[in-house]
Amino acid sequence: MINYETFFKVTYGLFIVSSGNMVKGNGFISNSVFQVTSEPPQFAVCCSKDNLTASFIKNTGAFSISILNKETKPETIGRFGYKSGKDINKLEGIYFKEGETGVPVVLEDTMAMIECRLDQTFDVGTHLIFIGKVVDAEIIQEGAEPMTYNYFREVRKGFAPKNAPTYIDKSKLKK
Amino acid sequence: MINYETFFKVTYGLFIVSSGNMVKGNGFISNSVFQVTSEPPQFAVCCSKDNLTASFIKNTGAFSISILNKETKPETIGRFGYKSGKDINKLEGIYFKEGETGVPVVLEDTMAMIECRLDQTFDVGTHLIFIGKVVDAEIIQEGAEPMTYNYFREVRKGFAPKNAPTYIDKSKLKK
Repeated sequence: MINYETFFKVTYGLFIVSSGNMVKGNGFISNSVFQVTSEPPQFAVCCSKDNLTASFIKNTGAFSISILNKETKPETIGRFGYKSGKDINKLEGIYFKEGETGVPVVLEDTMAMIECRLDQTFDVGTHLIFIGKVVDAEIIQEGAEPMTYNYFREVRKGFAPKNAPTYIDKSKLKK
Repeated sequence: MINYETFFKVTYGLFIVSSGNMVKGNGFISNSVFQVTSEPPQFAVCCSKDNLTASFIKNTGAFSISILNKETKPETIGRFGYKSGKDINKLEGIYFKEGETGVPVVLEDTMAMIECRLDQTFDVGTHLIFIGKVVDAEIIQEGAEPMTYNYFREVRKGFAPKNAPTYIDKSKLKK
């Protein structure tokens, strides 16, 4: 028997994963970012196939990860988490820079950033896992605490959007 | 430039990933466990190729994930994190059960468990990413809080062993 409440006990951070270029870029809120090897340092990010950023990552062969701080503005999460880059330019009016690979790196509400060159792409059904080699990694806000997905859910009352790997149809939860 | 301190800002949980059978089983401490799709529910775990559990997962085609609680005993982490199943029987004297697939599921210090049938295996160099479909998921300790890797590192003064995806050679850190 699968108790879907169990999945909420898995700890994650909260990130913006971005790709594209300085003319047309996009990013989305992700909780599925993790290091997969240390020699060389490589990170995995998991992304819905429907996600605009997924096509940018495939085209540019690079992506950036912005580690959000605990004080991240709800507007930042709203813009990157619940809107589509197909409808709006998510980077408009947002503090960001050009990374070494040419992808945008969101710095708004960001305590640290990691930029990767795409190495492998794995298909897991509705989602893709992108594996990238780290080319740049910097602390942006010394001493800041990272936002955890748990804090976002329980204190900020946030929820996973439909494209997230951790999305749960509420009908599956016990009443 | 890669500042390795950045990697410590990525949030993870702390888990025991197990495989094998009731006669010969093994498990290891992992911080790299995450959900990759919700339809169907699938989880990824990242595991060193040198790890005994990796060969058990390949042989049995299944694995279990034990989500450790915040009060997890240092002995449990010591046994599963810093010793090899090649030298000792890690499950001896440990509270565990047989999962639906036949793999051992560690219940010691465990607040929730997830059991998966292996679906795909991806090679990322020194490590493998195992993707499994969830066959069972249960809350073991209602109301318990999960241990985070951050809490383990900063409060418990733990460190990643050499086989971990997040292992960092101390010479790479700034003095």
